[in-house]
Amino acid sequence: MSHDQLSWTFGALADPTRRAILARLSQGEATVSQLAEPFHLRLPTVSKHLKVLQRAGLVKQGRKAQWRPCRLETAPLKEVAEWVDRYRAIWDERFARLDDYLLELQQKETDSGHK
Amino acid sequence: MSHDQLSWTFGALADPTRRAILARLSQGEATVSQLAEPFHLRLPTVSKHLKVLQRAGLVKQGRKAQWRPCRLETAPLKEVAEWVDRYRAIWDERFARLDDYLLELQQKETDSGHK
Repeated sequence: MSHDQLSWTFGALADPTRRAILARLSQGEATVSQLAEPFHLRLPTVSKHLKVLQRAGLVKQGRKAQWRPCRLETAPLKEVAEWVDRYRAIWDERFARLDDYLLELQQKETDSGHK
Repeated sequence: MSHDQLSWTFGALADPTRRAILARLSQGEATVSQLAEPFHLRLPTVSKHLKVLQRAGLVKQGRKAQWRPCRLETAPLKEVAEWVDRYRAIWDERFARLDDYLLELQQKETDSGHK
C-alpha cells in the first residue's frame, strides 16, 4: 500500500469495525473504553484500530490526563467524497440509459399488446 | 480485513495505481496492455491490480477471445458515495461553525478598530 493521504484513508475504511467506530464517533466524543463496550472488543483491539484511524487522520485523541476522548475528524472523509464524486456523472448516465432501455422495452410490449 | 463488499471496495481503492486504472477506465474500455502503457507497468503487475479491482466488483473483463477489454463498474463506487454522504452533514456543520467563528473574530477586530 502506498502512503499517500487518500490511500491511508481508504485502507483505514476497509474494515467494518473501524467504520463502526467512526459511526459511533459521529454521535460525539468517546473514550477508548466507551468505544470498546458496544462492540464487545478488548481494549488493545480497539487501540489497534484507533491507531489505523489516527494514522489516516480520521480520529484525533485528546491529551487530557484521565479522560482522553477520541474525536472524529471529517477532512479525510470530505476528500473521499470529492474523489468519488468524479464518478457520479458516469453512474448517473448509466442508470439513465438503463431507464431509457426499460421504458423502450415497456413501450414495445404495450405496442405488441395493441396489435 | 473483513470480506464484506464495502471493505473489499475500500481495500481496492487504497492504492494510487488502482485508482489511476479506474480513472483511465472511466474514459472508456481498455485492454490490459492499454492499461499498462501509460503507467509504465509490467503486465503481471497490472493483472495483479486488476484482480483486486475485479474482486471488489469495480472492474469487469470481457470474455472475447483476443480482445478482452476491461470495463469500469460503478455500483461499488455508488455504495462508497452513499456511505460517505452520511458524514456530509457533520463536516458541513463544522465548516459553518468555523465560518461563524471567523466572522466573529473579524467583527471583534472591526469593533476594536472603531474604539
